[in-house]
Amino acid sequence: MDYFVGIDLGGTNVKTAIVDRDGKIIVEDSRPTAPPGQPEKVADDMVRAIETVVEQSGLDKEQVLGIGIGCPGTVDPNSGVVIYSNNLDWHEFPLGDVLQDKTRMPVFMGNDANVAALGEVMAGSAKDAESAVVITLGTGVGSGVIFNSTILTGYNSGAAEFGHMVIVKDGEQCTCGRRGCLEAYAAAPGLIRDTKRAMQANPESLMWKVCPDIDKVDGRTSFDAKAMGDAVATKVVEDYVGYLACGLANIINGLQPEIVSLGGGVANQGENLLVPLREKVFEEVYGGKGEKHTRIESCTLGYKAGIIGAAMLAATQMN
Amino acid sequence: MDYFVGIDLGGTNVKTAIVDRDGKIIVEDSRPTAPPGQPEKVADDMVRAIETVVEQSGLDKEQVLGIGIGCPGTVDPNSGVVIYSNNLDWHEFPLGDVLQDKTRMPVFMGNDANVAALGEVMAGSAKDAESAVVITLGTGVGSGVIFNSTILTGYNSGAAEFGHMVIVKDGEQCTCGRRGCLEAYAAAPGLIRDTKRAMQANPESLMWKVCPDIDKVDGRTSFDAKAMGDAVATKVVEDYVGYLACGLANIINGLQPEIVSLGGGVANQGENLLVPLREKVFEEVYGGKGEKHTRIESCTLGYKAGIIGAAMLAATQMN
Repeated sequence: MDYFVGIDLGGTNVKTAIVDRDGKIIVEDSRPTAPPGQPEKVADDMVRAIETVVEQSGLDKEQVLGIGIGCPGTVDPNSGVVIYSNNLDWHEFPLGDVLQDKTRMPVFMGNDANVAALGEVMAGSAKDAESAVVITLGTGVGSGVIFNSTILTGYNSGAAEFGHMVIVKDGEQCTCGRRGCLEAYAAAPGLIRDTKRAMQANPESLMWKVCPDIDKVDGRTSFDAKAMGDAVATKVVEDYVGYLACGLANIINGLQPEIVSLGGGVANQGENLLVPLREKVFEEVYGGKGEKHTRIESCTLGYKAGIIGAAMLAATQMN
Repeated sequence: MDYFVGIDLGGTNVKTAIVDRDGKIIVEDSRPTAPPGQPEKVADDMVRAIETVVEQSGLDKEQVLGIGIGCPGTVDPNSGVVIYSNNLDWHEFPLGDVLQDKTRMPVFMGNDANVAALGEVMAGSAKDAESAVVITLGTGVGSGVIFNSTILTGYNSGAAEFGHMVIVKDGEQCTCGRRGCLEAYAAAPGLIRDTKRAMQANPESLMWKVCPDIDKVDGRTSFDAKAMGDAVATKVVEDYVGYLACGLANIINGLQPEIVSLGGGVANQGENLLVPLREKVFEEVYGGKGEKHTRIESCTLGYKAGIIGAAMLAATQMN
């Protein structure tokens, strides 16, 4: 069996693992990310983490064929340069070359959301799918597009920003500068905004029972009150599903992937979200729900998608 | 030099040509399409058209390596079956097999808009681009996505319907059943609708000079009156550019193609349309206009994109 190192470089932690070709994690390591603006320090920590997991795995170093890394921000997958990462305060850092020099192993790099999407395709919810779009409903709406086990990076390495697809022209302000992006409605902050607005307009809503302190409203508040039969909460959830379905139908009309997988906090609602969502999406997709149609599922790897996908990036590139 | 037959199967005419590997048309034939619901008759006519162009070209039959066909409707590129074509009133007709039997040449098939997009990539406005999206602004908004000289067909062979991407949730009615699709604003009928509304609301507009009979308004009326300095027409054009830019920025944020090519009637405005459009798109794309950014250009092959693209489909598949 061949093995690969997968590294998920986050703003808080660097997670490193030995992963086999099937996407199974053998040994895992997590250590804090050096403060922003210190890429050399992070690279040194990565080298130590790699040495640690290789040693703990009990494998010969020769069995570990390559290193894959998912990085926040814009990464040039060909040169291995982190062009820009806001989170890390890195600019044009050649992480790929630095690690390759220090470890004598081939290094493959990608954007963290894209790499996590690859993880779901190679070893999670979209395993064996010829094409998949993975959407993360968190603080923002992240996305990754995978065709034939390959990440769609686009001409400028910045593809798959479907969170920044306008669905309501001149609608709610998005963090990207546009108005009415999918992210402005389908990310947790959008759902929380709409929940609070509905609570303020409806003092009788059971959402006030679920969450008496409006400053503590989260992405679950409306779903919980809907489960209690509250009409106002039901409307908030229906509207949320409507916005998300609109965005997914747009993506499906454009790409017709075999599967769309949903991850991130809001997706933890599972079938509570997916059942009405699928219904709404297939009302909207062009040509309706034909015999061959996109499946809409939940991601299954959780935070591990990042490390597994990073290792799979190395595995697929070295194939 | 190798040669291929390209066939553009339309509702009115079947256009057939001998095309060389560089996308140059050697001989062309056009004959009326048999009435709807007669696929066998159309196949027989195609065989005669192929014999005609091969003979007229003066080539040996052995130099003509294969046949490519662009068909309206949904086509299974693997089986060569026209699954459904509304225009032609065809259902599950195995055109690929029928032609292959009659001509003893390999046959390759695709949707007509996708095949025309391939033509623009192989021999037109997007020549040598690693990735391109071709958008046709006609009666509808057609689109084709090409990655590495390959048509994106999607899991169900129905991909690249970016005309049916909602940009104004609950907006203008679209022919597809959704409301607020790009097509409902950026296709000629949407522009004509908005032009007429502006004329009715503004009897003093110079658009009435350009086109005194409101029933004869077309996609040029507002552009022509804008050129005369009319403020109302300028607003119609600006809104049109705004909708189109919104849709293109969505597509670019998702796919980051090297080039977006615009064809169809409205695109005949050329730089009158492209100059303000580019400006608006790059205000909106995620991360702004970076050093590497999508180029937005006009298609150059006109109606010939269909036959050239069909021949190029055969050429790329037989490579």
